[in-house]
Amino acid sequence: MSVELTPIGSLHSPFSQKFGIPRQSAGLTDIPGYITLTPPYDDLNGFRGIDAFSHLWIVFQFHQSIEQTQSYSPLIRPPRLGGNDKMGVFASRSSFRPNNIGLSLVKFVKIERVSGQTRLHISGVDCLSGTPVLDIKPYVPYADSHPNAVSGYAKEQPQATLSVTFSPDLPAQTEEMLALMTQVISLDPRPAYHQRPEYQALHPDKIYQLRLYDFEIGFIVEGNGQAKVMTINR
Amino acid sequence: MSVELTPIGSLHSPFSQKFGIPRQSAGLTDIPGYITLTPPYDDLNGFRGIDAFSHLWIVFQFHQSIEQTQSYSPLIRPPRLGGNDKMGVFASRSSFRPNNIGLSLVKFVKIERVSGQTRLHISGVDCLSGTPVLDIKPYVPYADSHPNAVSGYAKEQPQATLSVTFSPDLPAQTEEMLALMTQVISLDPRPAYHQRPEYQALHPDKIYQLRLYDFEIGFIVEGNGQAKVMTINR
Repeated sequence: MSVELTPIGSLHSPFSQKFGIPRQSAGLTDIPGYITLTPPYDDLNGFRGIDAFSHLWIVFQFHQSIEQTQSYSPLIRPPRLGGNDKMGVFASRSSFRPNNIGLSLVKFVKIERVSGQTRLHISGVDCLSGTPVLDIKPYVPYADSHPNAVSGYAKEQPQATLSVTFSPDLPAQTEEMLALMTQVISLDPRPAYHQRPEYQALHPDKIYQLRLYDFEIGFIVEGNGQAKVMTINR
Repeated sequence: MSVELTPIGSLHSPFSQKFGIPRQSAGLTDIPGYITLTPPYDDLNGFRGIDAFSHLWIVFQFHQSIEQTQSYSPLIRPPRLGGNDKMGVFASRSSFRPNNIGLSLVKFVKIERVSGQTRLHISGVDCLSGTPVLDIKPYVPYADSHPNAVSGYAKEQPQATLSVTFSPDLPAQTEEMLALMTQVISLDPRPAYHQRPEYQALHPDKIYQLRLYDFEIGFIVEGNGQAKVMTINR
């Protein structure tokens, strides 16, 4: 028995590739994004009263993980555990999971009609641009908020661990773009094993490529927790 | 473009009909339930590490709402507004919604293999028994808990408003069953308009039928906020 669902819209975010997407969005509360609603779900009546809520749940599909999850794999390696230990997929928020359903808590910004489209603007987005949206629900604190819940290996929010500087000869960027690059890189998107001193000693000049919107950003990481943006290309 | 999903299991709860199911589960934290996992998702490895979490998200399908949502209806009448005002479906948790996706926060109890089945025991269930489960994810407080979020017309948890008594000539029941009936009825499952004094004055002897497991429970409501269980049949 299977269930057939129809996406209600599509999410637009700065993240045009997986590398650099913060985990659980909580790390980046002001990353802007919007959802374009597909007819008939673009009817503004469907959103009547939504501006009374500060936060929304976005139920979506990890569409880029689908090909890789043809067969069921019960164990995954959470990045939070350094990529060494395996945990059950249902004890994780891994994108490689049955049905590829993702859940993100975002801030409501506004809803508007723009050139014949309904756009729901949100912030705190941690999804790949192009993500199919399956549902939108209001966040209800009395039901959804359990600040004292216990959460295994993911007790605390990932902290910014890199300070970010920019090479002086880069093309000029908007304040927003500089802030976005700084935020994303400061959370250290590198794989856990690249963060080990042994790895860094062997690859001191490694350039990491990050894609945000249509910008290709190259950065290096110096031993003392310093990231430096070397190239910005479109 | 549509998305095909396969339920990973089926939820078992005391609620064999919609009438009486508390809204947002928060009202009934100790209602017991379990999920039986469908192969291949019954592999215990898929749950490795889950006992480190106190709470879980259950993503499910409102399977009994499917027939009624063949065509898209953007407005619903939230019970919280007395059934009078209409709100947008995406500004509500109504079960009559595109894709019929539901989201419930429950407590983790234990996971076990019982006669060849994997059962994930949970509590705080607010789903109809037989609900198809699409995903299970750990609750992560740093990402999911926003106690100060603003939530429109659903600011506070529904409170128990009826005190419950039992007619003396009822068949003997277990303590658990008496506690369950008391909890469910005390939250007043009647439609909002039945709670108005005018309605009650016209229908003083109305018997409400509630079904829990395979028990048929009949109760009346007296004017002063008193519910009395009159019949219990199997």
